[in-house]
Amino acid sequence: MDVFQESLKYHAAEPAGKFSVEPTKPMNSQKDLSLAYSPGVAQPCLEINKDPAKAYEYTNKGNLVAVISNGTAVLGLGNIGALASKPVMEGKAVLFKKFAKVNAIDLEVDTTDPEELIRTVKLLEPSFGGVNLEDIKGPDCFRVEEECKKQMNIPVFHDDQHGTAIICLAGIINVLEIKQMKIQDAKIVMVGAGAAGIACMEMVKNYGADPKKCFMLDTRGVIYKGRAAGMNEYKARHAIETEARTLEDAIKGADIFIGVSSPELLTNEMLLSMNEKPVIFAMANPNPEITPDRAHSVRDDCFVATGRSDYPNQINNVMCFPFLFRGALDVRATEINEAMKIACADALAKLAKEPVPESVKAAFPAEKSFEFGREYLVPTPFDPRLLTVISSAAAKAACESGVARSPISDWTAYEKRLQSM
Amino acid sequence: MDVFQESLKYHAAEPAGKFSVEPTKPMNSQKDLSLAYSPGVAQPCLEINKDPAKAYEYTNKGNLVAVISNGTAVLGLGNIGALASKPVMEGKAVLFKKFAKVNAIDLEVDTTDPEELIRTVKLLEPSFGGVNLEDIKGPDCFRVEEECKKQMNIPVFHDDQHGTAIICLAGIINVLEIKQMKIQDAKIVMVGAGAAGIACMEMVKNYGADPKKCFMLDTRGVIYKGRAAGMNEYKARHAIETEARTLEDAIKGADIFIGVSSPELLTNEMLLSMNEKPVIFAMANPNPEITPDRAHSVRDDCFVATGRSDYPNQINNVMCFPFLFRGALDVRATEINEAMKIACADALAKLAKEPVPESVKAAFPAEKSFEFGREYLVPTPFDPRLLTVISSAAAKAACESGVARSPISDWTAYEKRLQSM
Repeated sequence: MDVFQESLKYHAAEPAGKFSVEPTKPMNSQKDLSLAYSPGVAQPCLEINKDPAKAYEYTNKGNLVAVISNGTAVLGLGNIGALASKPVMEGKAVLFKKFAKVNAIDLEVDTTDPEELIRTVKLLEPSFGGVNLEDIKGPDCFRVEEECKKQMNIPVFHDDQHGTAIICLAGIINVLEIKQMKIQDAKIVMVGAGAAGIACMEMVKNYGADPKKCFMLDTRGVIYKGRAAGMNEYKARHAIETEARTLEDAIKGADIFIGVSSPELLTNEMLLSMNEKPVIFAMANPNPEITPDRAHSVRDDCFVATGRSDYPNQINNVMCFPFLFRGALDVRATEINEAMKIACADALAKLAKEPVPESVKAAFPAEKSFEFGREYLVPTPFDPRLLTVISSAAAKAACESGVARSPISDWTAYEKRLQSM
Repeated sequence: MDVFQESLKYHAAEPAGKFSVEPTKPMNSQKDLSLAYSPGVAQPCLEINKDPAKAYEYTNKGNLVAVISNGTAVLGLGNIGALASKPVMEGKAVLFKKFAKVNAIDLEVDTTDPEELIRTVKLLEPSFGGVNLEDIKGPDCFRVEEECKKQMNIPVFHDDQHGTAIICLAGIINVLEIKQMKIQDAKIVMVGAGAAGIACMEMVKNYGADPKKCFMLDTRGVIYKGRAAGMNEYKARHAIETEARTLEDAIKGADIFIGVSSPELLTNEMLLSMNEKPVIFAMANPNPEITPDRAHSVRDDCFVATGRSDYPNQINNVMCFPFLFRGALDVRATEINEAMKIACADALAKLAKEPVPESVKAAFPAEKSFEFGREYLVPTPFDPRLLTVISSAAAKAACESGVARSPISDWTAYEKRLQSM
């Protein structure tokens, strides 16, 4: 039975689906009922009516995230619709709980109109402490996230964009350290101008990459200044003054290739035309732009990361989003800003340089090494240290950048609380 | 510490709020992750994309209800807003789980525009198996429910209307049996023309009450044909040809008084002017239109029910909605129709005539008697038989009235399953 058949069985096993809702307070008597519901419940309602911040004290709002999609770009399956996206969104919701003890529910919104999606998310703001947008097609996803962030006072985060970008940046930070190269000196070629591609590009630039050395490509080739066909305002922000038109043109002498595009896109010739010790982040899912095996067989000085768990250096969003939200919720952040994202990337990069506990090693047989280096550039999922390290990095950055409504004063106590979760 | 202070403590105890979300499938390894999420999750998505009914097999949709409010009529507190209504909606959600093993989450929608609320609920249809509308002000609540029912293919139920009406009807059925009176012969006076009042009136008429003997009153008095002030289309449906203008006028010779209005509204004189063996369903919360003590001191031939747990004959919605949804979900009903509601009322009425288990008696010290009769007209909440009896009555009525997408063939097996839940 392959993973797909097994997944059907897994999903259909009673009870169908992947999560349940469980009361956390006693509900066994008429007395309990009078506290949880009428008449006692009137009191927390009145307190919140007087002071909206009390919602964090008397309801689960402060530890509840909505995973919201309209199903227009689900996995690599395209626009399969809101209902058919539900297994993915439920799955995402349980990852929040499993990895960071954040309660999360999935909402599938039956519209392809970004304005209607924005309005719906905004209207639901009272219900949650944060919103994780998911699998919304580009370029709609950019506008949806931007507008929701602007209109709302809780963290809104499109994981397909920033989750990937954060882990990718963590890997880049480490690979550049090993190569002893500064990011501003690197020629970077980014293939794929959808949610993840645009976000990765923005993040490396925010981290210091030189826009004049950053090439972005979509299915029509290089996004150059003056190109008319297949453009949108988000691609336009990354259009570059260049003669290069194809990936062959752009990749010559490049230091870093980042792909969120198609399987086997990167040819041996292209790889050979790159600069010394080339960096290949081949994140097309499930099949990368080049397999690590092929890459290493073509030239053995390259660094390779993929999205897959069966190769070293897996770029997996699950190493960030649960913890980033954990930190954001714990300080009641009004948003997830650039400082928080970069803090997560830095913390991930740093964690990869720490000695790895034996328990973590056992869980990841695919990893060839757990020594910081070419075969171990980023931590692995299920590393229990992520909860403390990433959550506190995000919370700290929120406090320092002034978006925390409930700043933490005792960081040692906070980290202890995370450790004991 | 009174119930209100105690309720604040109850709500604020860690973890804040009243429910958590828990994974129901293993999530402990990279392998589990590949089934629950990428890449395996693609398969259930594709199956649902081909056949939407598969959502009931591969997701939790079939056992998930959204409790939705805009906070415009919360308890007796009025329009306190969406956020401040959250403690009530969370409480309602846990009642679903506690009483009938239905997963439920709360959504507070930040709008006072009924059209926008309708649109929002409709857009979220893929996410749930059913929608419980709650605490939406009248007359908006009528239009919101009507439109959602019309536009959606899952059960939508406004509990403030029909929950109260169903339990009330169950009590009326039993009291009329004791009085040996037919409902079509009863003069009925209904005070309160909001959500619950209108629904109670509709339900007794659907059960056979004679519209010419049914008087509805609001704060301006009798709703008579030709009245212009303070009317809406829902009140207009119950306007009656009469000279009566006040409650004093209407109540003379009445057999049944149903109140969802104000404390102490029913005077001793009014009670004395009613027909013999008068029936008083005084459901104003938390203080009834007349206390059972005062009623019985004025005349000892009356039957009295209230909304309170500290008097006999509590009319409490929790005896119906969790089980009604349980049955509706179990047969994948496309709606909750009149037949299902009446089936619940009949089943509740019948259950009150069955001998009561000792365990149930112990849980309700306020009940003076558990013998069917004046002091025991309806079952009590926490009666474990409700789950089997009401859920199967609702499911059966759904099947018989043709709204079940997944009819039950073996009722004995179904009831056994309910008993073992």
